[in-house]
Amino acid sequence: MKMPMVFEQNETARIEAFSDGVFAIAITLLVLGLKVPTVYQLGPSGSLGLALLKLWPHYLAFVASFITILAKWVNHHRIFTFIERTDHAFLYWNGLLLLFITFMPFPTALLAEFLLHPEAKVAGAVYAGTYVAITFAFKGLWHHASKNRRLLAENVDDREVQQITTQYQYGPLMYLGAFVLAFVSVSLSVVTCLCLAVFSAFRGWPMLRLKVRRSKNK
Amino acid sequence: MKMPMVFEQNETARIEAFSDGVFAIAITLLVLGLKVPTVYQLGPSGSLGLALLKLWPHYLAFVASFITILAKWVNHHRIFTFIERTDHAFLYWNGLLLLFITFMPFPTALLAEFLLHPEAKVAGAVYAGTYVAITFAFKGLWHHASKNRRLLAENVDDREVQQITTQYQYGPLMYLGAFVLAFVSVSLSVVTCLCLAVFSAFRGWPMLRLKVRRSKNK
Amino acid sequence: MKMPMVFEQNETARIEAFSDGVFAIAITLLVLGLKVPTVYQLGPSGSLGLALLKLWPHYLAFVASFITILAKWVNHHRIFTFIERTDHAFLYWNGLLLLFITFMPFPTALLAEFLLHPEAKVAGAVYAGTYVAITFAFKGLWHHASKNRRLLAENVDDREVQQITTQYQYGPLMYLGAFVLAFVSVSLSVVTCLCLAVFSAFRGWPMLRLKVRRSKNK
Amino acid sequence: MKMPMVFEQNETARIEAFSDGVFAIAITLLVLGLKVPTVYQLGPSGSLGLALLKLWPHYLAFVASFITILAKWVNHHRIFTFIERTDHAFLYWNGLLLLFITFMPFPTALLAEFLLHPEAKVAGAVYAGTYVAITFAFKGLWHHASKNRRLLAENVDDREVQQITTQYQYGPLMYLGAFVLAFVSVSLSVVTCLCLAVFSAFRGWPMLRLKVRRSKNK
Repeated sequence: MKMPMVFEQNETARIEAFSDGVFAIAITLLVLGLKVPTVYQLGPSGSLGLALLKLWPHYLAFVASFITILAKWVNHHRIFTFIERTDHAFLYWNGLLLLFITFMPFPTALLAEFLLHPEAKVAGAVYAGTYVAITFAFKGLWHHASKNRRLLAENVDDREVQQITTQYQYGPLMYLGAFVLAFVSVSLSVVTCLCLAVFSAFRGWPMLRLKVRRSKNK
Repeated sequence: MKMPMVFEQNETARIEAFSDGVFAIAITLLVLGLKVPTVYQLGPSGSLGLALLKLWPHYLAFVASFITILAKWVNHHRIFTFIERTDHAFLYWNGLLLLFITFMPFPTALLAEFLLHPEAKVAGAVYAGTYVAITFAFKGLWHHASKNRRLLAENVDDREVQQITTQYQYGPLMYLGAFVLAFVSVSLSVVTCLCLAVFSAFRGWPMLRLKVRRSKNK
Repeated sequence: MKMPMVFEQNETARIEAFSDGVFAIAITLLVLGLKVPTVYQLGPSGSLGLALLKLWPHYLAFVASFITILAKWVNHHRIFTFIERTDHAFLYWNGLLLLFITFMPFPTALLAEFLLHPEAKVAGAVYAGTYVAITFAFKGLWHHASKNRRLLAENVDDREVQQITTQYQYGPLMYLGAFVLAFVSVSLSVVTCLCLAVFSAFRGWPMLRLKVRRSKNK
Repeated sequence: MKMPMVFEQNETARIEAFSDGVFAIAITLLVLGLKVPTVYQLGPSGSLGLALLKLWPHYLAFVASFITILAKWVNHHRIFTFIERTDHAFLYWNGLLLLFITFMPFPTALLAEFLLHPEAKVAGAVYAGTYVAITFAFKGLWHHASKNRRLLAENVDDREVQQITTQYQYGPLMYLGAFVLAFVSVSLSVVTCLCLAVFSAFRGWPMLRLKVRRSKNK
């Protein structure tokens, strides 16, 4: 086929809206992993306060995954502000990314369940490993979109493109580090994932600002 | 960095749409905390009517949380009608707020499970405590946005800003009262939470009206 | 307060979007009431086909609730095409309606669980009773909006208003009939609910058409 | 009634937005079918890695259903780009389609649970059978919309209409093949479903492109 297989701008809006929905649902489903203790489990004289405190791995996993998905949403949204076309490969990269995002409640619940178990390192590795997968999907998505400015809007600044490319070069490596760390100390691995999420959310927004300003100056 | 880190108007629309999604999902997930009695539990000759009546703490918790989340959505939406820019700190306050909102199904199910148990006061404290946290997140969000009119639209009236600020001064105190009340009477604490939700929803909308009218008069 | 407490048009769009989200989530959560038989329950030599056939009350309840929620969404959307303002009471009626809609997965699962149990009539009454509540919320919503054309758009035809008012006069009565029927025959009651849903969806759309045409002729 | 019962363009946007929501929720709910092993099941000395590997049928079903629903969303969106009116029958076809889409988590969990059980062929048949149902709903939806160009936009090219019609002629047959295959080899049937999903997503987008280009040339 001679024509380049690219789709127009309102298609990207549609794909972003669908993806936003998936992110919002995945982040809200995390709470279903928090199992409420039952009256039966506690017995008539057990301490509910103590039972709730013992659930701390569940709260930690919930908070870490919440912040990460939120940060990933910020990242996803940022990429879409630079893009004005889509093509098949972009759709597949985006689909792969959404697959890993919707999967998140599983490793989250797994980590919470096994954080204090001798096999915690396996749960931690699956947890950090899911983040590695998400980061690679992001890297692939961005690489495909930005190569030769394939899907980028014309008014996007090369400097900004380079900035994001650099960020996606280091991101997967850092999450790989968290993955390896899981075999040494699961808690340290989870805290690393948490810090990376906060950090990447922080990095994401200033660029948005630059972009919007730039397009206003045109 | 010299430039103030603020983002433009369509970014606030995006953040509000995502937040709206999270509110809508959280409010609909509450029903999953209502466990249907099973044929096995009831036995062949049990009374289903009686079994359903015994679930009243679940209905109470469901209704109280439903109304509260709805009222909080109204509040959230109201804040966004005054704002035309966002910045990092605003994003973090909003993220914190959404974290507590998505958490709501947990204290709701906890309250329902333990309302008739000797440890009910702990469940009630967690329930009211979550509302305290939500109110503080709202207070922080509004304080950050309104201080020196940092993120507010130009045409917003100082009188209205002051009105909301006053409301957010008393809100957390009232929920703190409900929290303390939980240690005296859980039912009274839950009813207080319910009343506060209805009241705050009531207070929220007239201002919206003022705002819209004002911008039309311009 | 002297000024009438009414809000402007983009507020109704916002409320409708939020309500649409709740409808879409509630209709999709119904499937969580369908419990998959487990390998353990079936044993190594049980017949899966037979086990699945025995779940027919679950499929019936799922389909009946799906069609009803879809029909109610059509109805809800229809009302909003006539309205251009909201006020407090309208918000409360809409909130009440959404409360019953989000509740739907509970009576659906209850009906499925007890349809073949001696206590089926209680489950059937709760199921039809929820529909009665939904219909009354709709009636209240419409009555409030249409009385003296309080919240209606100017170009709405009196004849059409009357048509809907008539429909909401008979709707609750019919669902009350289904409720009473539950004590005679649960299956008949469920089938009645199903027919009413299909019928009300059918009635809903032609009016939309009239409305759209009319506003084009202006 | 003399007037043809058709509704205008913004109605189709509304229906598509609602359908998009249902697709996004259904695809995200799939993860709830992945049951995390518990500490209790594993015991103090069990291997979590091994326990997770044994869950492979669950991952396979999750991925196959995820890709299929995503592909069906692409298909659904494509049909809507050609349509500018709706009518009753179209609404019912679309409702039927959404019914099968929201049902998807059930056959997905069923397949995962029984893939290694002697009764696997029944689970596989239900799984592929749901896809057959989805494909027939799509075929009905498209047939109704495209017959005599009933609901199509004026600028849609006959060649493109024919292309989609052809695709919907073969689609149901292929899924029927996967259904029959389930009685021979479940794994082969699932893989066939997976391939069909990828293939149909691939086929869907180029036409979108053509359409958008065409309308720009007008």
